[in-house]
Amino acid sequence: MSLKNIPYKIYLSEAEMPKKWMNVKAFMPEQHDPFLNPATGRPCTAEDLEGVFCKECVEQELNCTDKEIDIPQEILDFYRMFRPSPLVRAYCLEKELGTPAHIYYKFEGNNTSGSHKLNSAAAQAYYAKKQGLTSITTETGAGQWGTALAMAAAYFKLDLNVYMVKCSYEQKPYRREVIRTYGANVIPSPSDTTAAGRKILKEFPGTGGSLGCAIAEAVEKAVNTPNCRYVLGSVLDHVLLHQSVIGLESKIALDKYGVQPDIVIGCMGGGSNFGGLITPFMAERLQGKNNIHFIGVEPASCPSVTRGRYAYDFCDSAKITPLAKMYTLGCEFMPSADHAGGLRYHGMSPVISKLAHDGYIEARAVKQTEVFKAAEAFARCEGILPAPESSHAIRAAVDEALRCKETGEAKNILFGLTGTGYFDMAAYQSYNDGKMKDYVPTEADLQKGFDSLPDIG
Amino acid sequence: MSLKNIPYKIYLSEAEMPKKWMNVKAFMPEQHDPFLNPATGRPCTAEDLEGVFCKECVEQELNCTDKEIDIPQEILDFYRMFRPSPLVRAYCLEKELGTPAHIYYKFEGNNTSGSHKLNSAAAQAYYAKKQGLTSITTETGAGQWGTALAMAAAYFKLDLNVYMVKCSYEQKPYRREVIRTYGANVIPSPSDTTAAGRKILKEFPGTGGSLGCAIAEAVEKAVNTPNCRYVLGSVLDHVLLHQSVIGLESKIALDKYGVQPDIVIGCMGGGSNFGGLITPFMAERLQGKNNIHFIGVEPASCPSVTRGRYAYDFCDSAKITPLAKMYTLGCEFMPSADHAGGLRYHGMSPVISKLAHDGYIEARAVKQTEVFKAAEAFARCEGILPAPESSHAIRAAVDEALRCKETGEAKNILFGLTGTGYFDMAAYQSYNDGKMKDYVPTEADLQKGFDSLPDIG
Repeated sequence: MSLKNIPYKIYLSEAEMPKKWMNVKAFMPEQHDPFLNPATGRPCTAEDLEGVFCKECVEQELNCTDKEIDIPQEILDFYRMFRPSPLVRAYCLEKELGTPAHIYYKFEGNNTSGSHKLNSAAAQAYYAKKQGLTSITTETGAGQWGTALAMAAAYFKLDLNVYMVKCSYEQKPYRREVIRTYGANVIPSPSDTTAAGRKILKEFPGTGGSLGCAIAEAVEKAVNTPNCRYVLGSVLDHVLLHQSVIGLESKIALDKYGVQPDIVIGCMGGGSNFGGLITPFMAERLQGKNNIHFIGVEPASCPSVTRGRYAYDFCDSAKITPLAKMYTLGCEFMPSADHAGGLRYHGMSPVISKLAHDGYIEARAVKQTEVFKAAEAFARCEGILPAPESSHAIRAAVDEALRCKETGEAKNILFGLTGTGYFDMAAYQSYNDGKMKDYVPTEADLQKGFDSLPDIG
Repeated sequence: MSLKNIPYKIYLSEAEMPKKWMNVKAFMPEQHDPFLNPATGRPCTAEDLEGVFCKECVEQELNCTDKEIDIPQEILDFYRMFRPSPLVRAYCLEKELGTPAHIYYKFEGNNTSGSHKLNSAAAQAYYAKKQGLTSITTETGAGQWGTALAMAAAYFKLDLNVYMVKCSYEQKPYRREVIRTYGANVIPSPSDTTAAGRKILKEFPGTGGSLGCAIAEAVEKAVNTPNCRYVLGSVLDHVLLHQSVIGLESKIALDKYGVQPDIVIGCMGGGSNFGGLITPFMAERLQGKNNIHFIGVEPASCPSVTRGRYAYDFCDSAKITPLAKMYTLGCEFMPSADHAGGLRYHGMSPVISKLAHDGYIEARAVKQTEVFKAAEAFARCEGILPAPESSHAIRAAVDEALRCKETGEAKNILFGLTGTGYFDMAAYQSYNDGKMKDYVPTEADLQKGFDSLPDIG
């Protein structure tokens, strides 16, 4: 098929949109090790998890056999508000780079939450409503996940308490106001609404809070409120399942034009976007049907897969969650304050970790000034102002396209553009002013994090 | 055609997208009175205008005869980066209101500038480049126009100086940084880069600036810089021409499903969005082919058409531009500081003014707390966080839909959703906190503005 037949943007019709999520685990030759209950050291049962999470999400979390899972009609209706997202052929970027490569990106930022997070927020809010719950809780740092869940909770008419890390609550008042506009209650964490919050406030009166503390408060609030559960925006297997809609739409769009990607690239924080993007392509790869090069991109300042350990660790820094076998820097690892570009999580989705460990994924770390350089170039020629997180994927896509320029290969590169950067302009300002620094942890920095790893068997 | 056959969102394929703009003036039985040169009191010639504006834009400004004007391929290529914009069937809003009306909205906020402004920015930057210019200037208040023009200037590789009203420059640092990220030079106005700026700085050392002063600086900079012109984002006829792409896409999408609107609603500031939206529908109306009810919505705090005079006035408060015959509150009218919702312009597009004066358009004023109430309801059920400006149209659409609920009529309502509110969260916060006030100017307030009208014949 000739290049000219491929439009700038491929939108699917409603009839073409996926009606089922895809469960990548059902295609994996080996499953990741099970979550462990930290109290017993034994694998978590569904019952262990159902006290905290919605029942249907727990079922999905533990489902390693069904290749496809129906998307309920109510969620499909919600998806229609912001899906299909466009698959864009980056003609302008290709021209700017002078590369023979064909670059495609799946743009998930065309919704008010500004990111792909809404795909799982919609699903989790629906399952909470279906279970008869009246409220849900969550935590948010930068605010993308909190915004997405607030939108979903408003749509399904659920009460929502968002524990927002106090320094973000104060430094990102606009994010906070978007969440409030959707009717959610935003509580700066640590707060006096939970025992965990009160304890921290007593010990550290002036603290700006942490994600670990916000998670602890949100979980405590959920388990102590009737008809309430806690909701998480990344890392877990059921979140990756919901995000598979990204990859499924991408594949349907590319298949319409007979395009087979050679390289698939995504940024990795907790791993839900990258996991969702690669799912249908990885499923084929695991069946020997393609030989795609999968590249997961993480910040050099928080290099969980490229420099972390493959070990059991807590999912949160407050050490209250189940233990997951994953690549981790240790749950007490904190990237430097110079780290501007998102993707601050110490661990990585167990599914992604297992696939990387087994050699199916290349993990790559990039420095943030290089990331913002790519973001600026991308914004100027493709129009979209990318989120710093997404720009990690842009960086790698540009690097691969420049490699094609050297070799003369017309490879098909697909990357995930997870969101927009409108609420990240402080980081852009730092870059625009030439004040942005790179930070790469030393071996000693990493060792401190590893020292916090739990001692498991 | 049954309701169920109409999808949530109608996207046009590239082949279906309009290749020509439509010139509403060529359909009008009478033209608006010509612009006057304030120095001579005589109609402006092309030469008068070409010293300030790009040549091809001036030709379009004075063209009252061509019904259609080709969109150059270079602009079509740029449009492909963010167009087609979706035409959305507001199923969720209809359900929430319990109305038999069918509500459609054309969403122009799916681009980094966050609004429809990019349609004309792309065109004006292209014509500047084609003319061999190397730089352009403009002013910006809230920043939407500045962002749009920065994106277009980056794409066509033109230097751009944006004079940003100083208080906005300081209060909206994120808008400023978006513009800088696209490579434009942002100058807080008043500045020492122009005689006009230096004069104001000397007289009022601590001033936060004004749009009038920023326009004066941008025009002065343009006429004193080799190969440079000034660019304006609304009000003028050629800007409405470029914005006709909004209405044309809307009409093609509705025609595909056999939908004939009964009511077409848009917000009005300078009038470019409303003018662009209504163009193809008004063209048919003026040929007796439909009987659509056109409603232009303005803020009660800046009621140029509903309470202004139809008279010659300056387009800017610095009194340096040509005189336009339009509805105006007087170029020195300033809405109260309580006015949060955009649409602060003292006048109105001469084309829109003429159509309203001749009875083809109903102008309607709404209060801002009612506007934000509609915005909040819309955000919660339709997902999109609307700009305050756009929310004026939402308010009127909701009011019309509720009227249909009373009468039982299943009218087709189309409104323009011009943009997103991500940079307007201070206004939302004021609403969320219950602190937003309504402001309606008294007769005495209006009289002060009218006293500034020039004394013409």
